[in-house]
Amino acid sequence: MPAGEFAFIRWLRDRTPTDPRVRIGPGDDCAALAPPKSELLVTTDLLTEDVDFILADAGARAVGRKAMAVNLSDIAAMAGRPLGAVVAVALPSGVADSRQLAEELFLGMREVADRFHTPIVGGDTNAWPGKLVICVTVLGEATGRGPVRRNGARPGDWLFVTGPVGGSWLGRHLDPTPRIPEAMKLHELVDLHAMIDISDGLSADVNHILEESGCGAVLDAAAIPIHPDAVERAKRTGRSPLDHALGDGEDFELAFAVSPSDGEKLLRETSLAKVGECVERGLWLEEGGVRRALEPRGWVHG
Amino acid sequence: MPAGEFAFIRWLRDRTPTDPRVRIGPGDDCAALAPPKSELLVTTDLLTEDVDFILADAGARAVGRKAMAVNLSDIAAMAGRPLGAVVAVALPSGVADSRQLAEELFLGMREVADRFHTPIVGGDTNAWPGKLVICVTVLGEATGRGPVRRNGARPGDWLFVTGPVGGSWLGRHLDPTPRIPEAMKLHELVDLHAMIDISDGLSADVNHILEESGCGAVLDAAAIPIHPDAVERAKRTGRSPLDHALGDGEDFELAFAVSPSDGEKLLRETSLAKVGECVERGLWLEEGGVRRALEPRGWVHG
Repeated sequence: MPAGEFAFIRWLRDRTPTDPRVRIGPGDDCAALAPPKSELLVTTDLLTEDVDFILADAGARAVGRKAMAVNLSDIAAMAGRPLGAVVAVALPSGVADSRQLAEELFLGMREVADRFHTPIVGGDTNAWPGKLVICVTVLGEATGRGPVRRNGARPGDWLFVTGPVGGSWLGRHLDPTPRIPEAMKLHELVDLHAMIDISDGLSADVNHILEESGCGAVLDAAAIPIHPDAVERAKRTGRSPLDHALGDGEDFELAFAVSPSDGEKLLRETSLAKVGECVERGLWLEEGGVRRALEPRGWVHG
Repeated sequence: MPAGEFAFIRWLRDRTPTDPRVRIGPGDDCAALAPPKSELLVTTDLLTEDVDFILADAGARAVGRKAMAVNLSDIAAMAGRPLGAVVAVALPSGVADSRQLAEELFLGMREVADRFHTPIVGGDTNAWPGKLVICVTVLGEATGRGPVRRNGARPGDWLFVTGPVGGSWLGRHLDPTPRIPEAMKLHELVDLHAMIDISDGLSADVNHILEESGCGAVLDAAAIPIHPDAVERAKRTGRSPLDHALGDGEDFELAFAVSPSDGEKLLRETSLAKVGECVERGLWLEEGGVRRALEPRGWVHG
């Protein structure tokens, strides 16, 4: 336990609002939550300095927001409702004011956690000679029709995304919006066959659905909602905006598959656009009437 | 997602036995578990290279075991039953064979997890330019009388520990035994007023109980079970074996408080030794009839 952890834990506890779902909050060996009524969801994501964020550029507050948001996005991808989060950090022992860094990270996490009704119930604060590492684990519960997996897409299904993609590395990747209410609403409205959040990149993440589902898909180039950031980035890279939309990743929109009749319903009742259809096999891009094989690309690091 | 993560996830999934409690295992956006019947426990611990372990000395297998064991020890400290674990790692991108490192870590974690019926249900594998970081989060459920907290000790209570302490840094700290069955048995046998696992050090951890409970304690120097490793270490440091027993930490035995009548019952029905008694205030050590104030000491790093 690093020097000063107790004072920090006291600071945290003073800032932790009561929540009827939380039976034991920060400061004991474990936190305790009221048992969920439906299936218990759990996801963990670890972010490392200089790979997932540049601390000096982004600032600790934004790093905290991102660390919480990417985990909540995984709960959204199952159409779940968040129940609570625990947070572990390794703080660089070399920084001038590691207490301030810890507080800023926590406040950033709380901004996003509060917005999505997710109490931070515990954690582990460490100091070490390395750079900043943050690991957030979020617990949730399944809603309505149960957790939505990646493996339920089938040939003929229609594919949708919840928002425009591409170019997130211009800055949007630091402040993603987990699509939790959107996913729960969709889950009520239609039978979601398969869903994923777009972290690696649209083509790579759709491909994850296809691999798990054992089918293929054709994406409609003209229908993919391209974010203005992708257009902006394309000016600098010489690649097309579509290329950035397909491969940049860290959009944290949701991609999902539904039956054609549910697809029609979504076209009638929402502003979502159909971006493709599932087929027997392969991943394809259809552009101007021409269908070509699409290499699933995503943000691969390490 | 680092290159090769998919192949690694496949390798993991092939090695993950089915478990009726696990509805969705590794490879989706979240794992899903059957809802616990009682309160849901959650604990997270992050271990960093060169602080919590020396990778080259310990080997990845032992590091994996430790990462899992310290979390299970927190579940034990609440008298809980583990339900599942998720694991996040940041692998040093510089190592020759990071896949082998990841596998060894996982196999080490599985050795301990399997022993305590804890399925590893998901995780996050990263590569980065820094040193090895492992973050394990364990979920559990409360047993019998509910989760045992730190805050229920009161003056007059008797204090016990589940086993000998001190000198863990000779090597034992790498292979702690989470006292899960022991805690559940105690929880059935007596009314545990407060409990903690000894990670910081006996005196520091007893002091955590006292701070949360708002009382004090007198430890009986002659009654504290001193591990042979503490004796061994004392030969090298010039400090007393008792000093090492009180302050070394990372023993992962449990310290707990019970009423005097339950204490009598434990003396009759178990081989546990009473190590002290709670008083109104302060932390004291009684040695040869003399009572002196005891500074709570623990392993403070960072």
